[in-house]
Amino acid sequence: MSEILKGKPVADSISSDVKIEAEQLTLKGIAPKLATIRVGEKPEDISYEQSAIKRMDICGIKTDVCVLDKNITTQELLNVLHQKNNDNSIHGILMFQPLPSHIDSSVIKNAINQQKDVDCINPLSSAKMYLEDKKAFVPATPGAVMEILNYYQIPLEGKNVVVLGRSMVVGKPLSMMLLNKNATVTICHSRTKNIARICKRADIIISCIGKAGFVTNDFVNENSVVIDVGINMNNENKICGDVDFNEVANIARAITPVPGGVGGVTTSVLARNIIKAAKLISN
Amino acid sequence: MSEILKGKPVADSISSDVKIEAEQLTLKGIAPKLATIRVGEKPEDISYEQSAIKRMDICGIKTDVCVLDKNITTQELLNVLHQKNNDNSIHGILMFQPLPSHIDSSVIKNAINQQKDVDCINPLSSAKMYLEDKKAFVPATPGAVMEILNYYQIPLEGKNVVVLGRSMVVGKPLSMMLLNKNATVTICHSRTKNIARICKRADIIISCIGKAGFVTNDFVNENSVVIDVGINMNNENKICGDVDFNEVANIARAITPVPGGVGGVTTSVLARNIIKAAKLISN
Repeated sequence: MSEILKGKPVADSISSDVKIEAEQLTLKGIAPKLATIRVGEKPEDISYEQSAIKRMDICGIKTDVCVLDKNITTQELLNVLHQKNNDNSIHGILMFQPLPSHIDSSVIKNAINQQKDVDCINPLSSAKMYLEDKKAFVPATPGAVMEILNYYQIPLEGKNVVVLGRSMVVGKPLSMMLLNKNATVTICHSRTKNIARICKRADIIISCIGKAGFVTNDFVNENSVVIDVGINMNNENKICGDVDFNEVANIARAITPVPGGVGGVTTSVLARNIIKAAKLISN
Repeated sequence: MSEILKGKPVADSISSDVKIEAEQLTLKGIAPKLATIRVGEKPEDISYEQSAIKRMDICGIKTDVCVLDKNITTQELLNVLHQKNNDNSIHGILMFQPLPSHIDSSVIKNAINQQKDVDCINPLSSAKMYLEDKKAFVPATPGAVMEILNYYQIPLEGKNVVVLGRSMVVGKPLSMMLLNKNATVTICHSRTKNIARICKRADIIISCIGKAGFVTNDFVNENSVVIDVGINMNNENKICGDVDFNEVANIARAITPVPGGVGGVTTSVLARNIIKAAKLISN
């Protein structure tokens, strides 16, 4: 049976570090604060909003919660965003995505103040990471993967890491972050041939391909570390990852569960970004 | 003996396409023009300037050649750059790099008009490619690699491609371009273990690691396609690539020579970018 790499202790560890930093900043008169902006009442947005508020509370970060009618216009949303952009008491902005289809999301994404874009929704924020800009924020999901690897002391230097998926949100930034840690990175995707064979000879497999049951026992060996970033619904309408957990957890050395793995670490990465934003603004 | 993938026919083919487009634009009253800016008298800058002017001439693109004293200040260079940025008759700007050390090159790179940054020296130009922006220019060296693969009809979809080197100028953007063509991409570097074994099982090896004789017969098999981006000096003070040509050309299926390979295609990629810039500005 594999070692189960749970997210909770990772999130707890980050949160306790962040809490100390938040207290120190507050003593200096800078009380770190996150503004959330939600448009409409989508259950997944409400759920993430609640997780984020709870995490900020644990970390000693204040929150400013803004909920807007789902029929708001692009211009009205832009006005709200400008107000948060210009409010000096706010250090980070989290706007739940995707926005309703009638809103010009490209305009909104480009309008967010880059110094407060702790969720990396502005394309330039994502590009900063690619450009190895030291002021870049860490995108939440790839950041959570890196935190899990770090917490469980899984070495990356010189290791062969396969990333399954090449999205702008996870696969590409994650590949860049792994390269920066001196891993040898192979990026696979829907057009890759012999994907199981490529994975089987890797030290670490990170799946962010978005298909339930995609990673099977053919993909792993007894030394594989498997990080499952997928969030899918299975036939029983339950949340599951990309990995056939029951099969793979009998073989691999270590595996993250879904739920209870990567997803539970994202709000802690967000909290750390808010501290970074508060420090950058105050310097 | 390997098939030798020479750069000249690739450059000729691009140039003849570009020439037709340049003529069409000129008939519409938009005469495509490149401004070159050279600081000082470095032989490699003069050599590239001459190649670029010659290529533009072949392609029917006008040139505006500017040579500045090597002791120019950052502010003076900035003034020249602003003048080119604002000159509507100029569609592309090529400023030779690296600049003398007394100049704040970060300021200069960020000041170039992105719509004219055909050599991708502004970090935001490089980021555009990462962000899959359709207005992005193609960086010259990775673009030349892609042109060679395309001209010699070497398929990329589903192929295993190893990129040796992770620089911001070649390795990283090239990896993104290969991914966009549905290749499975492995990025190796100085910290990679078993690099020869990883290369040996690839379909295509692209070396941009900057070490003479790095890629030996251990790296290839009889089906390997080897693209050599390196420009180094060997013991006899002659230009050579990263690949031990004599060894590898006895085994691999195909190989680019150095000189006469990738390097000879870069000015044609630049010419194509100028046409793109002229079209974007005129629309």
